[in-house]
Amino acid sequence: MKPKVLIVMGSDSDLPVMEETGKVLEQFNISYEMTVSSAHRTPKRTVTLVRNAEKNGVKVIIAGAGAAAHLAGVIASHTILPVIGVPIDSSPLKGIDALFSTVQMPPGIPVATMAIGKAGAKNAAIFAAQVMSIKDPVIARSLKEYRKRMASEVLKKARKVEKS
Amino acid sequence: MKPKVLIVMGSDSDLPVMEETGKVLEQFNISYEMTVSSAHRTPKRTVTLVRNAEKNGVKVIIAGAGAAAHLAGVIASHTILPVIGVPIDSSPLKGIDALFSTVQMPPGIPVATMAIGKAGAKNAAIFAAQVMSIKDPVIARSLKEYRKRMASEVLKKARKVEKS
Amino acid sequence: MKPKVLIVMGSDSDLPVMEETGKVLEQFNISYEMTVSSAHRTPKRTVTLVRNAEKNGVKVIIAGAGAAAHLAGVIASHTILPVIGVPIDSSPLKGIDALFSTVQMPPGIPVATMAIGKAGAKNAAIFAAQVMSIKDPVIARSLKEYRKRMASEVLKKARKVEKS
Amino acid sequence: MKPKVLIVMGSDSDLPVMEETGKVLEQFNISYEMTVSSAHRTPKRTVTLVRNAEKNGVKVIIAGAGAAAHLAGVIASHTILPVIGVPIDSSPLKGIDALFSTVQMPPGIPVATMAIGKAGAKNAAIFAAQVMSIKDPVIARSLKEYRKRMASEVLKKARKVEKS
Amino acid sequence: MKPKVLIVMGSDSDLPVMEETGKVLEQFNISYEMTVSSAHRTPKRTVTLVRNAEKNGVKVIIAGAGAAAHLAGVIASHTILPVIGVPIDSSPLKGIDALFSTVQMPPGIPVATMAIGKAGAKNAAIFAAQVMSIKDPVIARSLKEYRKRMASEVLKKARKVEKS
Amino acid sequence: MKPKVLIVMGSDSDLPVMEETGKVLEQFNISYEMTVSSAHRTPKRTVTLVRNAEKNGVKVIIAGAGAAAHLAGVIASHTILPVIGVPIDSSPLKGIDALFSTVQMPPGIPVATMAIGKAGAKNAAIFAAQVMSIKDPVIARSLKEYRKRMASEVLKKARKVEKS
Amino acid sequence: MKPKVLIVMGSDSDLPVMEETGKVLEQFNISYEMTVSSAHRTPKRTVTLVRNAEKNGVKVIIAGAGAAAHLAGVIASHTILPVIGVPIDSSPLKGIDALFSTVQMPPGIPVATMAIGKAGAKNAAIFAAQVMSIKDPVIARSLKEYRKRMASEVLKKARKVEKS
Amino acid sequence: MKPKVLIVMGSDSDLPVMEETGKVLEQFNISYEMTVSSAHRTPKRTVTLVRNAEKNGVKVIIAGAGAAAHLAGVIASHTILPVIGVPIDSSPLKGIDALFSTVQMPPGIPVATMAIGKAGAKNAAIFAAQVMSIKDPVIARSLKEYRKRMASEVLKKARKVEKS
Repeated sequence: MKPKVLIVMGSDSDLPVMEETGKVLEQFNISYEMTVSSAHRTPKRTVTLVRNAEKNGVKVIIAGAGAAAHLAGVIASHTILPVIGVPIDSSPLKGIDALFSTVQMPPGIPVATMAIGKAGAKNAAIFAAQVMSIKDPVIARSLKEYRKRMASEVLKKARKVEKS
Repeated sequence: MKPKVLIVMGSDSDLPVMEETGKVLEQFNISYEMTVSSAHRTPKRTVTLVRNAEKNGVKVIIAGAGAAAHLAGVIASHTILPVIGVPIDSSPLKGIDALFSTVQMPPGIPVATMAIGKAGAKNAAIFAAQVMSIKDPVIARSLKEYRKRMASEVLKKARKVEKS
Repeated sequence: MKPKVLIVMGSDSDLPVMEETGKVLEQFNISYEMTVSSAHRTPKRTVTLVRNAEKNGVKVIIAGAGAAAHLAGVIASHTILPVIGVPIDSSPLKGIDALFSTVQMPPGIPVATMAIGKAGAKNAAIFAAQVMSIKDPVIARSLKEYRKRMASEVLKKARKVEKS
Repeated sequence: MKPKVLIVMGSDSDLPVMEETGKVLEQFNISYEMTVSSAHRTPKRTVTLVRNAEKNGVKVIIAGAGAAAHLAGVIASHTILPVIGVPIDSSPLKGIDALFSTVQMPPGIPVATMAIGKAGAKNAAIFAAQVMSIKDPVIARSLKEYRKRMASEVLKKARKVEKS
Repeated sequence: MKPKVLIVMGSDSDLPVMEETGKVLEQFNISYEMTVSSAHRTPKRTVTLVRNAEKNGVKVIIAGAGAAAHLAGVIASHTILPVIGVPIDSSPLKGIDALFSTVQMPPGIPVATMAIGKAGAKNAAIFAAQVMSIKDPVIARSLKEYRKRMASEVLKKARKVEKS
Repeated sequence: MKPKVLIVMGSDSDLPVMEETGKVLEQFNISYEMTVSSAHRTPKRTVTLVRNAEKNGVKVIIAGAGAAAHLAGVIASHTILPVIGVPIDSSPLKGIDALFSTVQMPPGIPVATMAIGKAGAKNAAIFAAQVMSIKDPVIARSLKEYRKRMASEVLKKARKVEKS
Repeated sequence: MKPKVLIVMGSDSDLPVMEETGKVLEQFNISYEMTVSSAHRTPKRTVTLVRNAEKNGVKVIIAGAGAAAHLAGVIASHTILPVIGVPIDSSPLKGIDALFSTVQMPPGIPVATMAIGKAGAKNAAIFAAQVMSIKDPVIARSLKEYRKRMASEVLKKARKVEKS
Repeated sequence: MKPKVLIVMGSDSDLPVMEETGKVLEQFNISYEMTVSSAHRTPKRTVTLVRNAEKNGVKVIIAGAGAAAHLAGVIASHTILPVIGVPIDSSPLKGIDALFSTVQMPPGIPVATMAIGKAGAKNAAIFAAQVMSIKDPVIARSLKEYRKRMASEVLKKARKVEKS
């Protein structure tokens, strides 16, 4: 199946965070491709990945990076596909550098920024599903069910805490 | 024309920032509705706005708020439509409070966060267009032209600076 | 005994922090109910909890949450009961996100914010007792004794340090 | 009428912020006394104010201060009355120093911290009213009406923005 | 020997940091007394300690505390003896709360603030020695020798690194 | 009269802040010399100033600087006289850079750091007086009177606010 | 004369800051070219500028940008010429976003980061001169004279302050 | 072989970070000398090191330090050689103090600042190579090959992640 989402991370050390994105996409049966490309160490490869993604029908690109996290912004500068950024807490500044580098984009080239770290990696997948749901009613239905499941899990945990 | 985008701001004092969103949407011929609703002062109205937006075919919701900016997150908790958040620098903390309150969403309920202030308000409109472009080729074309226009404006400014 | 205090936490992972609130309330013989509800994953349940708390005679609500900690603010928007917020350091930003999201409430809907983490969880209970003491002289007396006990504990520790 | 609330500010330069507290208390017909006392320049006066407040039947103390804002904490250390702290943005650090100094109280002596600046000053009054409403049904009713008025003001502003 | 320096810490959990102060004072043969007193939990004891210190000929007071570290400021408000503050990194905010609460004193009541944590605890002792050296030539000489020892230790380490 | 205090600032643009130090020293009849020397632009002059100060009987050195404020630390590395640092808010970071650069000194070379800006400049003078008062009873008396005057000024302001 | 330094800024609104770089280069008789190119709005132009600079014998590239300041990093990823970055305080976060985005580069692609704003813009020119001085003794001599001039200017200002 | 680069660290505890600089320089066959000198504990030695470096033909100085990291700035004030600063995360503030102290240099004396910690230590070496490459074509070639190697390593990691 052709991938609908491209997940790019700036370094293979970001995998433990970004594989959360993949796992959630699988729950929505959304096909994806996941790879590594650095905005700085492989700038050409990054552009080529974006070009190919557009050609191959990818609908959303998700980019995760730490420190001076330029990856999402650089990708966004080469495509009009929606780009979702996940700031990763891999430097001594604990992700606030990655957050500012990802979210503070200048007018014209937005990056849809998620929370720092794993919470953001999961939400990037859900947001990608939300974007795709505006034309795909199957995903829309999955999202509603996902919400219900989450709510009932909260309820289960509530029951446990109430009894503790 | 039925609005495709709902713009909500937490206070009418956010209008000078959020009207930038409206202006950019107009450049893409995307219909929108703009209103005020507070996550805290009018919680019911906020939920009703979201419900009605869903019913009326709104595709994307954009929420701008300052300080403990819960608005985007509260809206996102009531819909599976993509929600874009614009943190506004209206408190003494200059928007870093609004940024953290908007972007650090827990797993399950993403808010696509833009830059603080007017840059983010403009980009919210562009990102909404990018989301809608995945099913609307007219918007996709407009986005590509917008990019070109931006690039040639940069070039014009470059020429001026080079001569200065 | 009907609970006088409702403790809500945004996730069951917040229990190790929020159970401190319960322990201190027990020292003041203040009945409480403790549960989990997410402002975002279970927005309706959160509102229902508040409604029921009001009906059942709860006097104070304590809400603990991390990251974009909207829980206390969302609860406060649905009740005129005093709401005490405990920001929890569960994200890479170490609770400063939760602090800003809890304390920077807009005019009209206050949240009485405590310190980040366990210090704040304990103080939430004490502050709840202080609030209830304005109509309950028994709690007032307990609070005065608690203060004395604390002071004599400090003294004991001082003696140990002096001898070290 | 004997004051029910004592408002203390660390310096007369805090008056433009703290008089907001007074104005809101007046809307709730809650009597108050407002004065200046510095935790550092007049430590004895500060303790005397607290002692007298307790004797004279004050129910809630509100303290506003900037920079290393010790005032609320120092007051709280001398009373079991609920103490509400308002951090003021009067130093080059724009109130984040006052926020940390007010909110990060150690276990045992809570300060109910509000937002930085005028938003917090207003909310201090409302929270004081909420505290007092647990034994005074008249204030409870006023609070509910205040909420309704706020909501309808938001609505009015929404109408204006919608037409703009 | 009567103590020349009083070391106060806000909690016995600060001992591992503040005992560094004691160790360095011993190197300068400066007598000291070390105890625990909380600005908030034992406000009266704190004032009494200061009063007694003045009476007993203490020349410098050193106060170490974490979180909303009011201790040094509260002590300084009750004496004209030089007060040195050591902010301790014992809260989730890693000492930046203690730093702001200690250093941002209002005009009139200075606290001589040292670095966060053990570096500051050591330097508090050295600075106390420097203060006392302006009237005690023996301490002045010790300080000069201490400087030389430090320099030669750096040199030894330099030799090791150069060979590595 | 030979100066007892040397005031150094990193740039003449720091004068509006640092002249506050001079004004307060004059209230205590403490003689001082005030000059400009940059840790970076005139490193030799800075060392010479320190050497001469020591020779001429200066008792305390006060250094005010902004941005990467190395001045106080560099001075402290060349003398065992007590060095007081005033961080100045002259860069876009509003003095937090100057604060960190001044206060976070490594073990061995303390700088007694004051608040950012004018509050710190005033307190530097008062702290210098406190240091000198341990051998000069006249200054000690002046300090006690200064405290009383401050307290009565607070009282006057309190009266005004109470009547407002 | 062929330019030895290329100055690029992300927006023409950065000109008031970056023209300081030009002015200082002129003092060193170093030829330069100054233009505008956005890492995001004109990514191709940015790469072309770098390619041409390399071909035309440019020795150092200086890039100034605000907000999520990717410009210096993106340029550095396309050349082995030394790239100097100037973070600009043009967003509500006052340049701390630009600083983190410029300085926190991943291993492999360094950006020599200067201070935020005009101080950094001037220093970028001086650092460029220092880099070029390692092969050009004329520039080395100019740098030494520049240092002397700075020192004597400090001295002049010192004289004025001393007399004030 | 005479060293071309001088690496200085403020403390031998910085060695695990700064030895990364050495390792990378070795990959470029650039001779270096590495030692310890404190801006504060051994100010004279620091100046002597700089003087000798200049005499012995060193081309670039790299300085790594934590906390109030004055080392790079102090070195830069004594030489016109390019000075590269590496802020080290060795204090409770996690390197943000070292970053501000290193990067916020006043106009006239630049320090080329790298990322906090090991990333910065590696990049300091690469940037030194870039500076030296403007007159040494062998290093220029090595840098180009280094870039290629980095790119192909990213590719290898990409392949692994793609298969995972």
